[in-house]
Amino acid sequence: MALLTDFGSGSEYVGMVKGVILTHRPAAVIIDLFHDVAPQAVRQGAWVLSAACAHFPAGTVFCAVVDPGVGSERQAVAARGGPYWFVGPDNGLLYPALQQFGTGYEAVRLPVPATASPTFHGRDVFAPAAARLASGIPLKDLGRPADPLVPLTFHRAGRTGEVVHVDRFGNIITNLPPVAGRTGYRVRVGNDTTPRSFAWHPTYAAAPAAEPFLITGSAGTLEFAVPGGSAASILPLRPGDTVRID
Amino acid sequence: MALLTDFGSGSEYVGMVKGVILTHRPAAVIIDLFHDVAPQAVRQGAWVLSAACAHFPAGTVFCAVVDPGVGSERQAVAARGGPYWFVGPDNGLLYPALQQFGTGYEAVRLPVPATASPTFHGRDVFAPAAARLASGIPLKDLGRPADPLVPLTFHRAGRTGEVVHVDRFGNIITNLPPVAGRTGYRVRVGNDTTPRSFAWHPTYAAAPAAEPFLITGSAGTLEFAVPGGSAASILPLRPGDTVRID
Amino acid sequence: MALLTDFGSGSEYVGMVKGVILTHRPAAVIIDLFHDVAPQAVRQGAWVLSAACAHFPAGTVFCAVVDPGVGSERQAVAARGGPYWFVGPDNGLLYPALQQFGTGYEAVRLPVPATASPTFHGRDVFAPAAARLASGIPLKDLGRPADPLVPLTFHRAGRTGEVVHVDRFGNIITNLPPVAGRTGYRVRVGNDTTPRSFAWHPTYAAAPAAEPFLITGSAGTLEFAVPGGSAASILPLRPGDTVRID
Repeated sequence: MALLTDFGSGSEYVGMVKGVILTHRPAAVIIDLFHDVAPQAVRQGAWVLSAACAHFPAGTVFCAVVDPGVGSERQAVAARGGPYWFVGPDNGLLYPALQQFGTGYEAVRLPVPATASPTFHGRDVFAPAAARLASGIPLKDLGRPADPLVPLTFHRAGRTGEVVHVDRFGNIITNLPPVAGRTGYRVRVGNDTTPRSFAWHPTYAAAPAAEPFLITGSAGTLEFAVPGGSAASILPLRPGDTVRID
Repeated sequence: MALLTDFGSGSEYVGMVKGVILTHRPAAVIIDLFHDVAPQAVRQGAWVLSAACAHFPAGTVFCAVVDPGVGSERQAVAARGGPYWFVGPDNGLLYPALQQFGTGYEAVRLPVPATASPTFHGRDVFAPAAARLASGIPLKDLGRPADPLVPLTFHRAGRTGEVVHVDRFGNIITNLPPVAGRTGYRVRVGNDTTPRSFAWHPTYAAAPAAEPFLITGSAGTLEFAVPGGSAASILPLRPGDTVRID
Repeated sequence: MALLTDFGSGSEYVGMVKGVILTHRPAAVIIDLFHDVAPQAVRQGAWVLSAACAHFPAGTVFCAVVDPGVGSERQAVAARGGPYWFVGPDNGLLYPALQQFGTGYEAVRLPVPATASPTFHGRDVFAPAAARLASGIPLKDLGRPADPLVPLTFHRAGRTGEVVHVDRFGNIITNLPPVAGRTGYRVRVGNDTTPRSFAWHPTYAAAPAAEPFLITGSAGTLEFAVPGGSAASILPLRPGDTVRID
């Protein structure tokens, strides 16, 4: 079981979710994948979830809660994608992770008990469902087939993509793969007509200190980085910004 | 085993406490309930502990350390309350959690070894005791009957209560239950003579953006919230402040 | 298995490392020792690791990643020291922990797969090696004997030492043991010629409020502390600063 939320790392709400999971499944092994998704930043959570899930063992249940619509009519869902299970709100959060396995996915709509807190489905809806899946209860026993899930995609067309995440070091992560053999890029951001040049270096150690450069990050995509510093404090790039490379 | 401290989430001191627990009980399952209690904020820790513990499995041992008096003559205790065990300093921290089960509690005073660090009973006194309880060692084998515990209560008389916690989203949490059917409240804070009006909405999604309102939070009590924002940055309400609703 | 990194507590990179460990060893028990080492602060990480490891059970594998040279030619190593295993970059990080057991250590150089991300050996090199050690695979099966490790020592000569760590409470931790019976110290910092006087108190509770004093911390060494406050915000002492006591 792995958890991804915008509750904040170490939040008491994360602790309560874990208590509920253990109540339903005392043998659960619970890993914190990421809790510092910016509040209500569904796209950021979706990217981290989709980029990280393949590093977990087959059979892992991901309980993901970035849920600005909690208590509204949005579906609560559980789904299978590739070798993994995903539980969370139907607001796009789970969509890229499910889609990347390319074989379609099956999803059910979780019932919301009348006793569920309208502010905390993580505790009262998603945690119990995730624990049941981890216990081996079949997906179809958790609810009726879901309505088609709300799609969420990251913009990508050729060499145009977007900023998908800024990590705590200030690395600005795009969804653009590097071009083999390139050691420099001309980059246009947003509506820029004039490109800006950035060197590409294979490692942090190979890059000159304090200067923004491009590196192929651990997700296999281009990241803006500054050795010993924060790219995000130097470059005006935020999640969702369009990025075009030459 | 669940941990609640004011050490800060991810603190090296939390890591050491876990190492000691595993040394005494290699099979321990250790959950972080909450480590971001404000430094030395015994009342905040007491509220979170009492509000959260019922979401954990019966038999859970809570090791709770918010301990401004560490090294002084305050008792170190272990106690049983309802289906749970609690270990920590006797400064009120455990009291509301124990009291809420209403059937009395039994408590023992933990001996403090001469080798214990006078600054870190979490590691040297509470962690070993919690691990022993989790291993099935009877409470009475951990120490002599404790002196009566230091009481700590949250003010509540009819529709007058107090602010008990502010979470990281800036939600201001009171200990006042909602009045069934009410969709608005007049609220007096502290020594205010003039009440202020707040709408009550059942969900965040139902509330107008950026405006403070009341919601029934996940503890079943009234919370001041701001959709997409922080109530604590708008309203001058802090833990311990008196709140009266009409 | 215990993790120490500069990734930040709750970082998604920590989550991915855990996923990889579980992929290689589903039964792994993974403890967060500390992730808030200041970015690239190898000396701070080395001190926390060496001070904390003895509180963990014999046989614990420590996976430690503070790795400014990731992707460069620095060795990736796994080593045995006393009853523990250590995995991480060869930049001094593991050295004090290994050295303190005084019986020499054996170390192997971990191969770096061509597929490893040059920015994230924690995930692609150290986590798999740590999981294999935890699974009982012999150290010598993980790589060839390592070159001699890069040494890292904390300055200490008689009553001259250094600041080794500042914790989140602002306690300034030195590597100097207290002098038995002393209740006050004259302290010279850096190149100071004039000493400054500090009282020593056995507990926080015994010290006057808001005034810097010395206490014997949980590592058994002298710490500058302020009851109810932060010594680091009052005293100009940073990790690496020389400290001399009379």
